[in-house]
Amino acid sequence: MTADLARPALPLRPELAGLEPYGAPQLDVPVLLNVNENPYAPSDAVVEDVARAVADATRTLNRYPDRDFAALRQDLADYLAVESGVRVAPEQVWAANGSNEIMLHVLQAFGGPGRTALSFSPTYSMYPEYARDTSTAWIEGRREEDFSLDPDAARAAIAQHAPSVVLLASPNNPTGTALPTDTVLAVLDAAARVPGGCVVVVDEAYGEFRRRGTPSALELLDGHPHLAVSRTMSKAFGLAGARVGYLTASTAFVDALRVVRLPYHLSAVTQAVARAALRHAPELMAQVGSLRDERDALVGWLRERGLRVADSDANFVLFGTFDDRRAVWQGLLDRGVLIREVGPQGWLRVSVGTPQETAAFKDALTQVVGLAATGNEEDR
Amino acid sequence: MTADLARPALPLRPELAGLEPYGAPQLDVPVLLNVNENPYAPSDAVVEDVARAVADATRTLNRYPDRDFAALRQDLADYLAVESGVRVAPEQVWAANGSNEIMLHVLQAFGGPGRTALSFSPTYSMYPEYARDTSTAWIEGRREEDFSLDPDAARAAIAQHAPSVVLLASPNNPTGTALPTDTVLAVLDAAARVPGGCVVVVDEAYGEFRRRGTPSALELLDGHPHLAVSRTMSKAFGLAGARVGYLTASTAFVDALRVVRLPYHLSAVTQAVARAALRHAPELMAQVGSLRDERDALVGWLRERGLRVADSDANFVLFGTFDDRRAVWQGLLDRGVLIREVGPQGWLRVSVGTPQETAAFKDALTQVVGLAATGNEEDR
Repeated sequence: MTADLARPALPLRPELAGLEPYGAPQLDVPVLLNVNENPYAPSDAVVEDVARAVADATRTLNRYPDRDFAALRQDLADYLAVESGVRVAPEQVWAANGSNEIMLHVLQAFGGPGRTALSFSPTYSMYPEYARDTSTAWIEGRREEDFSLDPDAARAAIAQHAPSVVLLASPNNPTGTALPTDTVLAVLDAAARVPGGCVVVVDEAYGEFRRRGTPSALELLDGHPHLAVSRTMSKAFGLAGARVGYLTASTAFVDALRVVRLPYHLSAVTQAVARAALRHAPELMAQVGSLRDERDALVGWLRERGLRVADSDANFVLFGTFDDRRAVWQGLLDRGVLIREVGPQGWLRVSVGTPQETAAFKDALTQVVGLAATGNEEDR
Repeated sequence: MTADLARPALPLRPELAGLEPYGAPQLDVPVLLNVNENPYAPSDAVVEDVARAVADATRTLNRYPDRDFAALRQDLADYLAVESGVRVAPEQVWAANGSNEIMLHVLQAFGGPGRTALSFSPTYSMYPEYARDTSTAWIEGRREEDFSLDPDAARAAIAQHAPSVVLLASPNNPTGTALPTDTVLAVLDAAARVPGGCVVVVDEAYGEFRRRGTPSALELLDGHPHLAVSRTMSKAFGLAGARVGYLTASTAFVDALRVVRLPYHLSAVTQAVARAALRHAPELMAQVGSLRDERDALVGWLRERGLRVADSDANFVLFGTFDDRRAVWQGLLDRGVLIREVGPQGWLRVSVGTPQETAAFKDALTQVVGLAATGNEEDR
């Protein structure tokens, strides 16, 4: 035996060696516009309702939760019907601890060793981690210069790589780009031609922030049993801390997720918090409306100052380009404004905050980039 | 193309085809003694404290939670120091949504494709599912007739199969059997000799219910960086609905889990609930003491009636043996008492309930099995 019995080696999987845990830097800064959180804290009414619901749930917390969270699935289906006009059955709804656990379930059921997941970059940087965590091979196609997805290029990539899972973020993170219906339909058609089958997940984490007239892939569920649309309560509902993601698909799709989920994965408390917040959907959707307006105004402001700005259907804006984006990011941070250095070279991403936070961002950016020198100082 | 575009196939992994989601039947029955829940609902004091803590957490729920839940890890370390006399650093503590997510993290970090996990049956029926969900090969060695684990047999199995993960439930589910220190040491030594490394997880989900004098594997952490001890708040703390499992190990072990965890896997609400409950540990541990006494009395009662009963260090009792255990299970259910048909042929498992629930179980069992005919009727 050659093992050192006094210092046994840990059999860490080789692909994990030397990796750091995922996550944006958590810094203590006055203006946090780095992780696309909703800037509005839950109202007193929401806090009270959540506390009451959790107190109720706690009285039977010695019991395991409803494994299939029937009431929450019904509430989510009802909410989606109002939000998107698309009515689905509760059996078509799935939920988990954040949409990242949703994606894990999808890859555990349909990906895994010997299979491939495909997306189109630049896109959400966690996708390859989900693939890695499930030993699914990971392929990245490319989006166009303007961050759109060319339907023919998408078809070709799917035909070439024969993935079992395609992940499409729409609106896309970090670019804010929503996919038109025709593009999603092209992907669905190509996926249906993959021998052995291929599921398509449209990740609408930021779906509620889409501009008027931008479609939701929910409208395509009917007739596409291999399509799933994922959503989250982290953004529009302002519940990032509660970890509630969900997905809508055909019943057969959802039933596959039920097999791989850990039993009782969604706590009775999480179910209670989500249901309480859903009762306040009208109030929270009004906030979403003002964040949309704030976002559109910010896009306009940046463009007026000669910056490139990606069209955004999300609660963040990708802008640039800068020869040294790191210096701009640091300059903002030095002024108490934390944004995210992410996406293609030269670009930066800023979350839409409160009007006060947006003003602080504009001030800081003006100082750092010298926007004043462009003759637009009167707009500050 | 041969694909039926109108009905695209879902690429469900072949090993999942035809499987039903895991879980005990959830039936509406007066006396629930089937899933080893703590029969005592949280007290009013706990409910109030939890509600207050969740209200506080909800005020900032629009923000992502602390990814590394530093405060909760400290509280768990403090609790373990009191419960077991073993002091660990917060960096040696990990937590997740139930110990099943803990096990998932362990297998994602140290198991996976091309690797093997080993346990010794009869043991917890979820272990092979965790292995399946992570594409880890699964091997089951055997426990002895009395459900103990023979150290030499364990050594031989580890040497033969060279697993990268060994799972040992102690107290074991569904048998209630705790492992003596010498057996765990033998396993740790054999694991240290596995080329490439092997980690050992002692699953002490029921650890707090161990009889006086039964050791905890926490005492072996020092000097064994490949050992982890997992616990849960589901049982002793009566928080099955809250989904809080945790693990203690070397810092290197925990750091590996940090790489595979989904970011923000533990919600701010879950962190708040767990911390509130931990403040009530003394009160909850007093309940554990009375459940232990109730368990010991139940073991004695069953033995006095001529039944075989496995020694139990848990909050449940495995008893038998019956030629037709299904009929006994059904007879109890017909009388409003739900227990679990699980474990080796002929045995049944009953959770320790309140004195009233235990009395209902004894009554029903006496009627169903005809224990009265053995001349012990006076004890009913």
